[in-house]
Amino acid sequence: MRDRPHIAVIGPAAPSPEEAARAFEVGELLARAGAVIVCGGGSGVMEEACRGAKAAAPKKTVTIGILPGTDRSASNPFVDVAIPTGLGELRNGLVVRAADALIAVGGAFGTLSEIAFALKAGKRVVGLGTWELSRAGETDATILVAHDPADAVAFALAAP
Amino acid sequence: MRDRPHIAVIGPAAPSPEEAARAFEVGELLARAGAVIVCGGGSGVMEEACRGAKAAAPKKTVTIGILPGTDRSASNPFVDVAIPTGLGELRNGLVVRAADALIAVGGAFGTLSEIAFALKAGKRVVGLGTWELSRAGETDATILVAHDPADAVAFALAAP
Amino acid sequence: MRDRPHIAVIGPAAPSPEEAARAFEVGELLARAGAVIVCGGGSGVMEEACRGAKAAAPKKTVTIGILPGTDRSASNPFVDVAIPTGLGELRNGLVVRAADALIAVGGAFGTLSEIAFALKAGKRVVGLGTWELSRAGETDATILVAHDPADAVAFALAAP
Amino acid sequence: MRDRPHIAVIGPAAPSPEEAARAFEVGELLARAGAVIVCGGGSGVMEEACRGAKAAAPKKTVTIGILPGTDRSASNPFVDVAIPTGLGELRNGLVVRAADALIAVGGAFGTLSEIAFALKAGKRVVGLGTWELSRAGETDATILVAHDPADAVAFALAAP
Repeated sequence: MRDRPHIAVIGPAAPSPEEAARAFEVGELLARAGAVIVCGGGSGVMEEACRGAKAAAPKKTVTIGILPGTDRSASNPFVDVAIPTGLGELRNGLVVRAADALIAVGGAFGTLSEIAFALKAGKRVVGLGTWELSRAGETDATILVAHDPADAVAFALAAP
Repeated sequence: MRDRPHIAVIGPAAPSPEEAARAFEVGELLARAGAVIVCGGGSGVMEEACRGAKAAAPKKTVTIGILPGTDRSASNPFVDVAIPTGLGELRNGLVVRAADALIAVGGAFGTLSEIAFALKAGKRVVGLGTWELSRAGETDATILVAHDPADAVAFALAAP
Repeated sequence: MRDRPHIAVIGPAAPSPEEAARAFEVGELLARAGAVIVCGGGSGVMEEACRGAKAAAPKKTVTIGILPGTDRSASNPFVDVAIPTGLGELRNGLVVRAADALIAVGGAFGTLSEIAFALKAGKRVVGLGTWELSRAGETDATILVAHDPADAVAFALAAP
Repeated sequence: MRDRPHIAVIGPAAPSPEEAARAFEVGELLARAGAVIVCGGGSGVMEEACRGAKAAAPKKTVTIGILPGTDRSASNPFVDVAIPTGLGELRNGLVVRAADALIAVGGAFGTLSEIAFALKAGKRVVGLGTWELSRAGETDATILVAHDPADAVAFALAAP
């Protein structure tokens, strides 16, 4: 299992309906491709990605939730392996460390911290309607822009 | 899977042959009892417990390794879910947070830190040839002393 | 000392000459205003801010460096209190937690992670030539844009 | 300041009167010797050590408190530099990383975790009425036993 690609799906706990639907589809496609799903273990985008994975491949998929608190049972019900950290928002960094690549669906400030850690670590970040970064008026093109879930999953799983 | 008991097996990376054999047997017994095995992901006691679990129940057992470094592939080969933390020895605290109870087989100073965190958090710690604690000449009896792996597993899985 | 404002100065370890000069001036102004300077303890913007503070108010200023490694002596020489964490890039979150407000001078991905954590925690972030954020083509105006170091320090120290 | 010895004083938040008096005296002696005092920032032994240091050398002493929570103002009033971590009990590991040597005055399980981390890292630990460790009935002599605060401070400050 350890040798399968580990893809983090990151995004807000309170997504729009469109973001939720995209996260679900990302989860389905990752599960069908045999990826292990990593997330922050909470609701919203995190839960939808896990729920999609479980719907698509209930037996073979593994979903990992890395939680801010110390209570394993606080994870969403589609998480198989819940890691309670007690680190608060700092657990975002562990989500990044556990993943080979990340797909950001929407995004609030917590998601932005995960994107930043991942780019700092040189990991691939694929965005589906997420943050756009610029400096001095120039767009930073480091986040790969996907147009739909299939695109996003293909980018995330492409050989580095 | 999240609802199954999560038992950490802790102990030295360089155990004696007797400690290694006991860790293997602890892993076997935990796996047969349906427990999820949590460990620090390294060699020695950690690896033997995971190896025992995989030998006893190759399909249904899940082994979680919470690693000090940032590289998932550094875990022992019997770890299913490897969580690279980059926290160094501080990851010992996450091993404790991920577990409902702990079994210490032998023990060096890293093991002692896990025992201490677990006792601080009010979690059950079972010892098989591990540290004995005293203060002002009086033995502290908080660590439950087991005489063999079967004892240890029974104590760890007993209702709290 | 604990009751004085704690302001983090964040930015790249390899700044442009203009960024370095601005960080130095930010440090000077914060020190004259009686602030405690918090930083990541490294070189570049972090070092220039501490150096500026020490130049402006050598006796009364306190500079805190929260380091990624475990060796206190790796901090820049203008850090008074060096806290070695061994957390790697995750220490960025501790820089944010130690500060009441943050001033970002320039910025690479590590700086972006600090900005994100701070905004998530509801702390004031002032930018001097740092990241600009947008989503769906709309600029996010949460980072306060300063035009020069005096502006930045005034924004950071303004009552919340 | 960074080049002065950094000595952690560790022990329970609810000490006996004798432990409190010893922690106060350890703080006094460390301050007179020019050491920086590191602690967990809380009450009891931590507060008494800081209070003793401030009583003995109010101007030159620096006391660092590394806190479990995220609120700087929760530290005891004799802490100069408060580092709120939000790591909970895991901050015990940061207390150890910030220190060159440690003096344990009394001790509960949190103190034991600090002792264990320090011994694992090869740092000197001096005990004043703290835990005694044994394995298989044999005493572990790694903790240096001091008979009074003067002894403890002398051991902690001795060249490694």
